[in-house]
Amino acid sequence: MDTYKYAKSQALFERAIDVIPAGIYGHLGPSEGCFIPVAAYPFYVERAEGPYVWDVDGNRFIDYMCAYGPIIMGYNDARVDNAAKAQLAKANCAILPSEKMVELAELLVDTVASADWAFFAKNGGDVTNLAVMTAREATGRKKIVKFSGGYHGVTQWTQSLGYAGIIAEDVANVITIPFNDVASFEKTIAENKAQIACLIATPYHHPAMADNELPKEGYWQAIRKLCSDNGIVLIIDDVRAGFRLNVKGSDYHYGFKADLICFCKALANGYNISALCGAEHLKNAVSSVFYTGSYWLSAMPMAAAIENIKQMREIDVAKVVTEKGKKLTAGLKAVAQQNGYQLIVTGEPAMWFMRLADDDGGFLHQAWVSECVKRGVFFANHHNLFINAALSDDDIQFTLDVADAAFKAINKK
Amino acid sequence: MDTYKYAKSQALFERAIDVIPAGIYGHLGPSEGCFIPVAAYPFYVERAEGPYVWDVDGNRFIDYMCAYGPIIMGYNDARVDNAAKAQLAKANCAILPSEKMVELAELLVDTVASADWAFFAKNGGDVTNLAVMTAREATGRKKIVKFSGGYHGVTQWTQSLGYAGIIAEDVANVITIPFNDVASFEKTIAENKAQIACLIATPYHHPAMADNELPKEGYWQAIRKLCSDNGIVLIIDDVRAGFRLNVKGSDYHYGFKADLICFCKALANGYNISALCGAEHLKNAVSSVFYTGSYWLSAMPMAAAIENIKQMREIDVAKVVTEKGKKLTAGLKAVAQQNGYQLIVTGEPAMWFMRLADDDGGFLHQAWVSECVKRGVFFANHHNLFINAALSDDDIQFTLDVADAAFKAINKK
Repeated sequence: MDTYKYAKSQALFERAIDVIPAGIYGHLGPSEGCFIPVAAYPFYVERAEGPYVWDVDGNRFIDYMCAYGPIIMGYNDARVDNAAKAQLAKANCAILPSEKMVELAELLVDTVASADWAFFAKNGGDVTNLAVMTAREATGRKKIVKFSGGYHGVTQWTQSLGYAGIIAEDVANVITIPFNDVASFEKTIAENKAQIACLIATPYHHPAMADNELPKEGYWQAIRKLCSDNGIVLIIDDVRAGFRLNVKGSDYHYGFKADLICFCKALANGYNISALCGAEHLKNAVSSVFYTGSYWLSAMPMAAAIENIKQMREIDVAKVVTEKGKKLTAGLKAVAQQNGYQLIVTGEPAMWFMRLADDDGGFLHQAWVSECVKRGVFFANHHNLFINAALSDDDIQFTLDVADAAFKAINKK
Repeated sequence: MDTYKYAKSQALFERAIDVIPAGIYGHLGPSEGCFIPVAAYPFYVERAEGPYVWDVDGNRFIDYMCAYGPIIMGYNDARVDNAAKAQLAKANCAILPSEKMVELAELLVDTVASADWAFFAKNGGDVTNLAVMTAREATGRKKIVKFSGGYHGVTQWTQSLGYAGIIAEDVANVITIPFNDVASFEKTIAENKAQIACLIATPYHHPAMADNELPKEGYWQAIRKLCSDNGIVLIIDDVRAGFRLNVKGSDYHYGFKADLICFCKALANGYNISALCGAEHLKNAVSSVFYTGSYWLSAMPMAAAIENIKQMREIDVAKVVTEKGKKLTAGLKAVAQQNGYQLIVTGEPAMWFMRLADDDGGFLHQAWVSECVKRGVFFANHHNLFINAALSDDDIQFTLDVADAAFKAINKK
């Protein structure tokens, strides 16, 4: 099988570097070339449908990044898109919210176990930041505890000293501890008595470029108790995992209850919205924070989110993507083994992380991923992957065939 | 003329307060009841078209807030919407950007005088924050200078100590000085030698709840020189005024050149996008900042922005809305005078601020605005207003008739 060529992507990129810093910033792009095998990837998409994207050169890919997470029902899902378009024809960004804002808040409160209310914004980082501000307001405390390697957006406190544009004051009140270590949190609480406003954490540990880690038995229950006993607001950043493990929220999935829970990505199958949900006792605190944005009342993404949540509930999407993820990752492991490799899969099956064993520096894994991408399977080598509900058994078989060819290609080198 | 009733809006709001903090947060809503005459307003929009919105009770309003700024061609502009819908049918939020990202960056560089490059995000606050981080990275300095009453979004440094969720470290490096006062900036520079990373400012002073102020002759030229002489990055926050004064940027309009310029609102006539543009010498600094978001590569708002910018250029939209604004505000002043009032109009005609003279506490102005709103003219009493290109002479006449009836109504009380 001939591997893909990216002539049009590359020509567009040549234009882009003149007028866009680094050509393509953020996410996948040459600026991340240090750890992504950029030459294997297309740069520009032409269209998307179901589990597929087609690049500007006409190459088709199964997108196992699901647009870095937002796509859960498949691209251009008819039911979600029709709801969005019907709302767009009436009103989108207007001087007032539409009825859809009320409907969506009611639906989230009905759906998400820890939600007594919902607040809508645009970026996942808008709501992780609002959550932290709300915790500071509610507690009168300054300090934020987060887990090493946890990603909560790009607001200054989420970054580290030494990163471009970050100053000492930005991160002066942020304490970073290891995940899955109750004693470490206990020690931190003891050392910062009555100073910790919140713990912010993803429901399981899914850092980039490292094996993902599920919570140990009883871990969240111990953390929940420590937070409650010490007046610490427990914030779950469900931006990436939200609705993928359980439509009721990932805290519910792991058997505990967050005080605040942040959603974005899968919320509206690609339409531009995020949500902070939370417990009744924080409703006054959140409404006292001054927090707004130009497009935050826009109705189109709310109409999309409503239809998306209804569909996710109807088909029990978390179960669907988990089953597909199990089937796919089992197949990938078997294909690796047949080719003399060991594929290590961690995290939840619906959003697994993988790497090849015995691969110092990760160059072997990079090479294999590159060969997959050039044959139509869009993996990222540094990040967890995602499954969407439109992925078929045939797509899984196609992926396994490509994975096999990719192993054979790196074996030849 | 009977005044409007809002039964359906109020019933929806009763549902909303159960599930949304403060019912409607941000922007217009009962949480701002301290200074907005809430009872005069509808809460939920049903549809929008041209200069009009219709609320859920079927009342029609001319929206002089233009959705708080995003609407410049009029609501549901066919050309912008058709471009957005055509792109949506292909791909919107996908794993890769589309060709539209390159086209839009090229168009902005061609259109905006101070733009050598463009970076796209979602909120206006995303790009004001990125501008500040970029300035800190480029200069190795911490301090931010801004003008008293200037609004630059909701990121922590834009707020003040004493606001909910804000801690001392958030604002420790922010210096606030008065607008239109060169000596004050000179003194600040002298007192903070080689410590100021940037000055961030709107192109003219348009605070809420206060008369707006145009730059004095030579003011910006003096500020530009002080910035250049002292290694300070000059950031123009053109989120609100952008494209309304001159499609080439509001710095161009006032005869100077920003180092970084922030756009949002009018950029895509209501589609969800913002942009940071800037000078070549800051291109490396901006690309070194870690800054990304789930929907930042979405193609639909980029397609909308392209068509919107093309149209704004074709019709010279700044001239159009300025002329309409002049006509309207002259008419409003005359109507006020005929009714025994003096209406004070400040700021640029395309986005004027108004208040009644001899009105301690602003209650008279509130009462008049309330009577206008209840007759179909959506003014806000605390904020600058906006004109869009769809506003007709008949709409202006309707507005003047309503203004007259509203003055007569408050005179009766």
